[in-house]
Amino acid sequence: MRTTVGWQATTTGTPSRRPALGTLHRTPLQRRDLRPDDLAIRVDHCGVCHTDLHAVRTHDEHADKGGTGSTPLVPGHEFTGVVTETGPEVTGFTVGDRVAVGNIVDSCGTCAMCRLGQENFCHAFPTLTYGGRDRHDGSTTLGGYSREYVVRDRFAYPLPAALDPAAAAPLLCAGVTVWEPLRALGVGPGTRVAVAGLGGLGHLAVKIAVALGADTSVISRSPDKIDDARRLGAGDLIVSTAPKQMADARERFDVVIDTVSAPHDLAPYLRLVALDGTLSQLGHLGPVAVEMTDLLVGRKKLSSAGSGGRPATAAMLDFCAEHGVTADIELLPSSHVNEALDRLQRNDVRHRFVLDLSDLD
Amino acid sequence: MRTTVGWQATTTGTPSRRPALGTLHRTPLQRRDLRPDDLAIRVDHCGVCHTDLHAVRTHDEHADKGGTGSTPLVPGHEFTGVVTETGPEVTGFTVGDRVAVGNIVDSCGTCAMCRLGQENFCHAFPTLTYGGRDRHDGSTTLGGYSREYVVRDRFAYPLPAALDPAAAAPLLCAGVTVWEPLRALGVGPGTRVAVAGLGGLGHLAVKIAVALGADTSVISRSPDKIDDARRLGAGDLIVSTAPKQMADARERFDVVIDTVSAPHDLAPYLRLVALDGTLSQLGHLGPVAVEMTDLLVGRKKLSSAGSGGRPATAAMLDFCAEHGVTADIELLPSSHVNEALDRLQRNDVRHRFVLDLSDLD
Repeated sequence: MRTTVGWQATTTGTPSRRPALGTLHRTPLQRRDLRPDDLAIRVDHCGVCHTDLHAVRTHDEHADKGGTGSTPLVPGHEFTGVVTETGPEVTGFTVGDRVAVGNIVDSCGTCAMCRLGQENFCHAFPTLTYGGRDRHDGSTTLGGYSREYVVRDRFAYPLPAALDPAAAAPLLCAGVTVWEPLRALGVGPGTRVAVAGLGGLGHLAVKIAVALGADTSVISRSPDKIDDARRLGAGDLIVSTAPKQMADARERFDVVIDTVSAPHDLAPYLRLVALDGTLSQLGHLGPVAVEMTDLLVGRKKLSSAGSGGRPATAAMLDFCAEHGVTADIELLPSSHVNEALDRLQRNDVRHRFVLDLSDLD
Repeated sequence: MRTTVGWQATTTGTPSRRPALGTLHRTPLQRRDLRPDDLAIRVDHCGVCHTDLHAVRTHDEHADKGGTGSTPLVPGHEFTGVVTETGPEVTGFTVGDRVAVGNIVDSCGTCAMCRLGQENFCHAFPTLTYGGRDRHDGSTTLGGYSREYVVRDRFAYPLPAALDPAAAAPLLCAGVTVWEPLRALGVGPGTRVAVAGLGGLGHLAVKIAVALGADTSVISRSPDKIDDARRLGAGDLIVSTAPKQMADARERFDVVIDTVSAPHDLAPYLRLVALDGTLSQLGHLGPVAVEMTDLLVGRKKLSSAGSGGRPATAAMLDFCAEHGVTADIELLPSSHVNEALDRLQRNDVRHRFVLDLSDLD
């Protein structure tokens, strides 16, 4: 085994003897020895995703109930770095290559979805970058909040030279999560797109929609976001708490990308969708109540998406390199990871935290 | 005013003094004198739609609570007949023309949806064929379970000569309700379509999908429906209560048309939808619970539709004439209307009741 270091959630101990909930600790980690098709990657930058926050909070709750024995948790599933070693069968990468890894690191490779290049929807469930179960040794995968990651070559992507490695890291989860629905819904020049929410997903949805040539608007609770929206390339801002603005925008958009992460009523967003248009709800998973007449009138569609397959991820990186799209980030030394998670929980971020993992050396 | 006769729900009286709930009575009715753009139609055949059943039951409940004063109810919103008189400005029809009328008889004509030819989604709400409010005199519209109807010319459609007037009547509501989503979803040669339920909507969805060239399957709780499915042109039947059949059909269909009218879980049908495919739920309106991950995995879409705009209704009639598509009906004298409603409630119909209104003369 190889050793590295990373930021891990507490796994054992009673609450009274543990440090504060929701904190990650600098911990030595083991990585597997390279298989023939593996790369070792020095992780330089890793984005902080809402999923990470959710995983840490859930892990803590589990630890409180069960105490010992919970699976180890090292978050992080959108990262960039440099290849430091390659397995003997690796042909697509060499030591020193800049690479990027997203939220899945393996899949069955044989099911209908894998054959379609949608490994993110693998029928046998894709191996998640952290909290997943390795398909060979059964171990729990540990994520990118660490200085080294070992990954099967098929699930690493060359990082285009034009992309800043820190600002590109969030493309690997947030970016491809908005890229896939925008592309699948045929967004291009002249498409009328609205993006609700300007967090990690939302601000990248705006940038990518604009780069695709769409006529792009932002929907936000706060009129203060107008400068942000304009800076990202949006044509205007619709204030969701202003009834007249929402009424005026009725049926104005072919595609509404809803990235609001808190549970919320979809009806106000559906009213903005044009005839035969689509509301793609990406921010909040879980059960949702839909009034069917809100879909019937206007033959509207409700959809969702998440993460990306290998071909789409590679295409998204090329597109972003060509159009100069990266995330707007706040770069923090990885030792500030707990602060980043706390601020993310309060929505105090514009628009994505990225951890600089060089402080782990 | 003009006088005719029709089948009307009881509007006044206490339950003890009224005939049995859910019965319609032969009643003299008034129709307006013709406006310049009106047609008078001798109604020959009128389909019995689930909406009619719902309207009669709801009307009775209302009568029980309120007693007097409830609005008059004459159901019927898919009918065919012959023009008997035309207003002075009518140019598209002459006396003796075969015509058809669906579930809307007027709209604002100026809103964005009307301008798109989707009068069924009129922002000012379309005037329903029965139970609607006339845009000129404010009266409550009375439906096609009657011997005469007076309608604005724009909302009557020439009935193609190739179509049997009795079997064509259900095309005007059930037919166009399935036509619009099938067309909007791009169904054509090679599209993989499944239709759940073989009632009025479902059997026409199968026939039209087959006529559009789709590779069409039926989903039913009952394996007994296989002969019906084959006769309608479907390639096979998937028994929804057979877990292996449903599992084998996972992600097999680009479009699933769900016409099941009772409230039901959408998840089993969503599992049949292919990558980027759509579940169009037409049978049951009201609130529906959706698990967003059922849409996320496979980027699936949930949609709905209902009724049709003028251009689509005319196009659907032409298409059905060209392809020999009409409803499979059980034709009853209109005096059997209450029996038809009772049997419809028990799903004892293959596949649509049509009333012959000549017995009202």
